[in-house]
Amino acid sequence: MIQDRVIITDVGPRDGLQNQLKILTIEQRLSLIRSIAEAGVPQIEAGSFVSPKAVPAMAGTDQVFTALEAEGFTTPTIALIPNMKGYELARAAGAKTVTMVLYASEGMAQKNAAMSMAGAEDITGDILALAKRDNIEVIATIAVAFACPFDGPTDPIVVEQMAAKFIRAGADQLVLADTIGAADPQQVRALTSMLVSSHGAEKLGCHFHDTRAMGLANVYAAVESGIRRFDSSIAGMGGCPFAPGASGNVATDDIAMMLQQMGFATGIDLDKLMHASNLAQELTGTAPGGRSKAWLQGYLAKQAS
Amino acid sequence: MIQDRVIITDVGPRDGLQNQLKILTIEQRLSLIRSIAEAGVPQIEAGSFVSPKAVPAMAGTDQVFTALEAEGFTTPTIALIPNMKGYELARAAGAKTVTMVLYASEGMAQKNAAMSMAGAEDITGDILALAKRDNIEVIATIAVAFACPFDGPTDPIVVEQMAAKFIRAGADQLVLADTIGAADPQQVRALTSMLVSSHGAEKLGCHFHDTRAMGLANVYAAVESGIRRFDSSIAGMGGCPFAPGASGNVATDDIAMMLQQMGFATGIDLDKLMHASNLAQELTGTAPGGRSKAWLQGYLAKQAS
Repeated sequence: MIQDRVIITDVGPRDGLQNQLKILTIEQRLSLIRSIAEAGVPQIEAGSFVSPKAVPAMAGTDQVFTALEAEGFTTPTIALIPNMKGYELARAAGAKTVTMVLYASEGMAQKNAAMSMAGAEDITGDILALAKRDNIEVIATIAVAFACPFDGPTDPIVVEQMAAKFIRAGADQLVLADTIGAADPQQVRALTSMLVSSHGAEKLGCHFHDTRAMGLANVYAAVESGIRRFDSSIAGMGGCPFAPGASGNVATDDIAMMLQQMGFATGIDLDKLMHASNLAQELTGTAPGGRSKAWLQGYLAKQAS
Repeated sequence: MIQDRVIITDVGPRDGLQNQLKILTIEQRLSLIRSIAEAGVPQIEAGSFVSPKAVPAMAGTDQVFTALEAEGFTTPTIALIPNMKGYELARAAGAKTVTMVLYASEGMAQKNAAMSMAGAEDITGDILALAKRDNIEVIATIAVAFACPFDGPTDPIVVEQMAAKFIRAGADQLVLADTIGAADPQQVRALTSMLVSSHGAEKLGCHFHDTRAMGLANVYAAVESGIRRFDSSIAGMGGCPFAPGASGNVATDDIAMMLQQMGFATGIDLDKLMHASNLAQELTGTAPGGRSKAWLQGYLAKQAS
């Protein structure tokens, strides 16, 4: 039986670390990235080219990319960029794939990027043209694709139109991000099935946070629609560091476990993934760990004995 | 718009408390049950009539039932019974509804109840006949309906045949229990859709544990099949008390939040449910709380202000 393949992108070294109290050194960030790669995670968002004043945890991302290139790192890495300046920095650092953020609400575009929704679309269009010339892949991520903390529920039609526009414009992937972890599985099923029926699943991905504990339910709902690309974060990093117990991104630990149990090929070695997860917890002191960790560790110990 | 209604049964005072390190007094158990009822949870499994030597936390369940009756408690309560002796004790204590446990594996029947699968079926048949005479409702719960810790994966055909037999025999409800929290949502979707297509959803329910963090994903999968009855446990009680972080039943807190967000009527007041959840945590010292608790408390505080 040929298993259906799911591509997991670990965004912990970016979305996770930028939300931890502790700022890791470049060498610590590299060790975490290497550890995730050793577990077989097929893609890693290794950092972002944002203002180090706004996001101190991401300062020195250029050093991360150049160090990985110098050591012959083979796992595909992705750089998040918020704007054209970020694109130029990522290109200069040798990034082969960039993620540019689009916004499905004006409130989030203004608060998070000090631009309008249309402004972010224009810049993404410009970046797509340059990236084609530079032979760089572009992932377009639609932030607040389900709900916005400022503007409330997101109109699915806005997301559908934005997705259609950037798939037509040549984005290599189009990711629907539940930025604040507000989506429920019925919403996810409705939006993803609409997009998959229009565009196919090949280029579509989903990015969920586990804020309301519905992360895996949302992954399952998207899988039911045919989605086979997911962002997740090692050890579930990414929650608000000031709210004890607050969840971050869906944990790579949990999503890999669930998808493998459901028969999907992820390429991930769960035992090695636990090393990466433990390392994330050790380095940050605040990463919660996968929600299935208590069970998964016992299971893996039994397998090994 | 008339909302679809979901019936949640809180099994915390039974499945939850029997797995806590601390044994509550009768008065503490009563205060927890009252608190859950005040939040509008429509059904409560208030205790079990098992050997107090085997399960000390459930000693005095007769006093719980007689006290509730004496004070004119109106929320329907359920008594779990493992055998005929349990039935007689529950009847004597005035229980109006009992849950009898069937087993979908020989290993679990032997280890948990020192009987065979067929033996449990025979007793359940006898109890159904007596209960009809006594005007007592019977819920038949099929334990290890997805996987058994001793015998491995459960054959869905075994579950289908057992369910068909006891629905025909007049069970008022038939609950599929993922006793060890091993099911994934694809398995749940497959088994529940098979059973709903054979028997309708009216009498069917599901009972999930969150051991592998797939509890809410499994609830969603069952909802997609048409299931509208779920067991859950206040504050997610029910995990192994010796494994820190180990999850118990799906938390009533999480399931109520998700189903209400999806537009289902549950009858539950989430604000009052938080009081019950906090009480469960205070009384036991080990109940984990809902997985969405950090978010839910912030949300409710904002609504109140």
